[in-house]
Amino acid sequence: MSQIYDRVALIGLGLIASSMFWAIKRAGLAGEVTGYARSEATRDTARRIGLCDRVCDTAQEAVEGADLVVLCVPVGVMGAVAQDIAPVLKPGATVSDVGSVKRSVIQAVEPYIPEGVHFIPAHPLAGTEHSGPESGFAELFDNRWCLLVPVESSDPDAIARLRALWEGMGSNVDEMDADHHDLVLAVTSHAPHLIAYTMVGVADDLRRVTDSEVIKYSAAGFRDFTRIAASDPTMWRDVFLTNKDATLEILGRFTEELFALQRAIRTGDGEQLFDYFTRTRAIRRGIIDAGQDTDAPDFGRGKTNQ
Amino acid sequence: MSQIYDRVALIGLGLIASSMFWAIKRAGLAGEVTGYARSEATRDTARRIGLCDRVCDTAQEAVEGADLVVLCVPVGVMGAVAQDIAPVLKPGATVSDVGSVKRSVIQAVEPYIPEGVHFIPAHPLAGTEHSGPESGFAELFDNRWCLLVPVESSDPDAIARLRALWEGMGSNVDEMDADHHDLVLAVTSHAPHLIAYTMVGVADDLRRVTDSEVIKYSAAGFRDFTRIAASDPTMWRDVFLTNKDATLEILGRFTEELFALQRAIRTGDGEQLFDYFTRTRAIRRGIIDAGQDTDAPDFGRGKTNQ
Repeated sequence: MSQIYDRVALIGLGLIASSMFWAIKRAGLAGEVTGYARSEATRDTARRIGLCDRVCDTAQEAVEGADLVVLCVPVGVMGAVAQDIAPVLKPGATVSDVGSVKRSVIQAVEPYIPEGVHFIPAHPLAGTEHSGPESGFAELFDNRWCLLVPVESSDPDAIARLRALWEGMGSNVDEMDADHHDLVLAVTSHAPHLIAYTMVGVADDLRRVTDSEVIKYSAAGFRDFTRIAASDPTMWRDVFLTNKDATLEILGRFTEELFALQRAIRTGDGEQLFDYFTRTRAIRRGIIDAGQDTDAPDFGRGKTNQ
Repeated sequence: MSQIYDRVALIGLGLIASSMFWAIKRAGLAGEVTGYARSEATRDTARRIGLCDRVCDTAQEAVEGADLVVLCVPVGVMGAVAQDIAPVLKPGATVSDVGSVKRSVIQAVEPYIPEGVHFIPAHPLAGTEHSGPESGFAELFDNRWCLLVPVESSDPDAIARLRALWEGMGSNVDEMDADHHDLVLAVTSHAPHLIAYTMVGVADDLRRVTDSEVIKYSAAGFRDFTRIAASDPTMWRDVFLTNKDATLEILGRFTEELFALQRAIRTGDGEQLFDYFTRTRAIRRGIIDAGQDTDAPDFGRGKTNQ
């Protein structure tokens, strides 16, 4: 793979940024990658593990001279970071981000983008429940989707270049407008996360079942929920606050359906339950066929269950 | 491991029974294992893949002379199967089951257990989203819990022998009474399954987001829900119909909490969301420490994402 940018700056050094760094290095996609994190401890860790070619003590220092700047911070602080780095952005550079919500990031960031700098929001649909500079790995984006969400002024050549970077990191790339992105993600990610958080909270609250029972006996089912509900609290708080409308719409639909199934249980309507469960099983088959998950026994967890 | 039973009969040849067979063989826990499935196709498959030492065309034939009979059929038909085999049960034999609900199985099966036969309900907390005779594997129960739910008349020696069998198949074994079992499972398994089924159904219904978008973009979050929601429809219909009260109680609690979090989103109460998500993250750590899941990156799915 050939080099796509001379210099890339990663602002915020968590799971996504650290995975981007290793993926960029794997394929030789950039000459130099600089990095900045607000916390000194994170910067120290990054230096210790060799994350980024150069770790800088200010965001401005990391951004100076960069051809691509990627904002990898929680959605709620994107605007403040954009304001901070705006004065030092190189003419012709591209600013992108990896936030899980797009409309609100565009509203927060776009006003600070100077004339002559390209702004192309993006969202890689990949993650684990781990966070921080040590959680990244080069393969995170392999065969996962990255959604580019260009704004009206986004330059086609700059878009093509950013697409090439994501493809070089292993992703499949699609383009989508911001509102549709936010609705699709509310369905596939945001509502499921809130539901998982809720169920894990209920289990923790229940007085007649101890936490240790819940933990010991969490076979398939609850175990998967806890994994989802272990994701970074700051990131997810910001997601729900900034994708409020779409998330609340989907949760409303969810509650409606849940009440219908609860009613079927209460009235003993086995046929309705069976039909519903048969339909949802087919969707699973579609996801495996689309290559977005493994069909391995025990979910590919391996036989030792560490 | 030494032989624990001379002859074991497995009635119903799905995921659990087929895994039991391979686990029994792995450790040499039984002299002969007979098997019966209602469907001729399943019996043919079992014979073809060498599942069971002897596949029988009737449940009675499989049960005759067995020291241990394990009912591995959906919870809703346990009573009918018990009635069918009752006349040929060997004096001193043990009848057990692997149903996900215990109170209703006891009510359905116990009346048919003849004098001199031991009845010891059980529930291995292990599974995958696959079903059928070809889905089993010897390692399914390794380091998973199996809950024994003895009835009042259960004989201590017979319990100890059944415990030894499950331990020989790799399980950790605990004992619990039926009502508590049904409540614990409502929390850790039954309610999460209904919730996952519901969310997958909502996604499928939504007109503005296509199924193919949902499938393509189902990164972590929805993807885990579809795996849960791909479980066997017959089994889960019966679970909800027979563990109605506990499931509805937990779903009621769940709805209450979900409404509180929805309200926090609507009013922009970031602190409440952050505190909630921080609490649920700690529960996840407990599950990993308890050895019930892997902490591997990308959930141990491996790097290729087939």
